[in-house]
Amino acid sequence: MKIDICYTPELIQQFDVSDKCIVVIDVLRATSCMVAGLGSGVESIRPVATVEECEALGKQGYIMAGERGGKKLAQFNIGNSPFDYMQSEFKGKRIAATTTNGTRAIDLSKGAPEVIIGAFLNLSAIVNYLKSQKRDILLFCAGWKGHYNLEDSLFAGAVCDGLKKEAEFDSDAAISAFYLYESMQKDLFYYISRSNHAARLSKFGIIKDIEYCSSPDAFDIVPKLVDGSLTI
Amino acid sequence: MKIDICYTPELIQQFDVSDKCIVVIDVLRATSCMVAGLGSGVESIRPVATVEECEALGKQGYIMAGERGGKKLAQFNIGNSPFDYMQSEFKGKRIAATTTNGTRAIDLSKGAPEVIIGAFLNLSAIVNYLKSQKRDILLFCAGWKGHYNLEDSLFAGAVCDGLKKEAEFDSDAAISAFYLYESMQKDLFYYISRSNHAARLSKFGIIKDIEYCSSPDAFDIVPKLVDGSLTI
Repeated sequence: MKIDICYTPELIQQFDVSDKCIVVIDVLRATSCMVAGLGSGVESIRPVATVEECEALGKQGYIMAGERGGKKLAQFNIGNSPFDYMQSEFKGKRIAATTTNGTRAIDLSKGAPEVIIGAFLNLSAIVNYLKSQKRDILLFCAGWKGHYNLEDSLFAGAVCDGLKKEAEFDSDAAISAFYLYESMQKDLFYYISRSNHAARLSKFGIIKDIEYCSSPDAFDIVPKLVDGSLTI
Repeated sequence: MKIDICYTPELIQQFDVSDKCIVVIDVLRATSCMVAGLGSGVESIRPVATVEECEALGKQGYIMAGERGGKKLAQFNIGNSPFDYMQSEFKGKRIAATTTNGTRAIDLSKGAPEVIIGAFLNLSAIVNYLKSQKRDILLFCAGWKGHYNLEDSLFAGAVCDGLKKEAEFDSDAAISAFYLYESMQKDLFYYISRSNHAARLSKFGIIKDIEYCSSPDAFDIVPKLVDGSLTI
C-alpha cells in the first residue's frame, strides 16, 4: 500500500485519483465540522460549492451551513464551527454545507473510487480504516486559497505516522509531513495556533474552535462520500 | 521584510513576483551545478528550456550542459553534475545549460526584479545577501516534475532559519520549512539521501553528487540572472 499527499487543490491534476482512497482534509474547519456533526448524530452532510445550491437545499429542509473567508453567512442557520454542528436539535437532520476550501477539495475528489473525511477529531478511526483497506492512499489537503497550509499538512503527517509500518511513503511530500508531525506532535495546538490560518481565524474570536480542532480522537467514525453526501 | 516559499513551479501563478527577490532552488542538481561552476571560474551560465536552444548556443562556442531525467544528453559536453562544472578548462568559458526542473523555475521567475540562485553550496552567501537587500523574498523550489520535493524545501527552510531574526515568515509554507530544517539540519545528507529524487538519482551511481550538493558553504558567491544569463 502506497501513501502520498496532495498539499493543495491546485496540484490535484498531477495525481491519478482513479484507483485511490482519498482522505479529504480541512482541519480548520470544514472536515472537523463534518466529523463533529456526523459523530454527534447528524444524519448526513451534503457539501456544495455555492451559496445558491445551499439555499436551494435549505428549501428542501436541509440545515444551511456555510462560511466565506471564515465568517458565517447571514442567511444561513449555522457557520463553520464544530460546536455549531454538534447541537442536539440537529440529530437525524441533514445539513447542506458550503465552505471556502474544504468543499472544493471534496468536489475535486469525485473521480476517486472512495472518498473519506479526515480531521484530528477522527485521526485514529481514519488510520485504522486505512489499514483495513487495500487501495493506495492519497491524503488531499484543502489548503488555504490554493496555498499549502500547516494544519492540514500536519494531519497528513499524523496519518503517515499511523501507517508507517503498513504503507510505503510514495513521495517527498509524505516524508516531509511525517517528519513535520514527528517534530510537532507533542504540542499540536501550539503549532496550529501559530499557523497563518489560525491567525486569521483568531481575529474572529474562535480560539476555542482551533483548540477543539487540534484535539485527536473525539469521534470513532469515518465519514464517506456516497452519491454526493457524507454519512457514516 | 517578508519571506515566503513556492514549493513547485505549478504554484507560481499564486504569487505576485513583480516586487520580489526570487531565490531559485534546485539542489539536485541544477542550482548546485550553477553555484559550483560560477564559483570555480566559469564566466557565465545561460539556462535554456530546450535541447535545441542549447545546441544553437553550442555553435556559438558555449559549453553545452544538460540532462533529461537525470541523465547526460549524448551530444552534450557535460551533464548535470557539479563536478562536471568545476573542471579547470572551463574557467572563463560560457556554459549553456538545460535541465528538467531548474531551468523551468528560472524561466518562470523572469517577471521578478531580481532573481538569484541558491543551493546548500552557497547557503550563507545567500542568507547574507538577503539580509542586505530590502525586497520581500520568494524562495522558489524547482521541485520534481511539478511535485514538492524534500531537498529544495529543506534548503528553503535553511534560508528561513538564517533570516528568522530579519524576516517575517509570510505563510505556513515558510513556517513548515523552517521547522523541517530545524529537525533535519544535524544530518542533511542522511535526510536528502532518503528523498525520492535522491533514490532516483542513486540508480545512476551519483551518490557522490548528492553528498556534495548537501554540503553547505563551499562557495561565497551569489549568482544573479541578468539578461538571461547567470553571473556573479
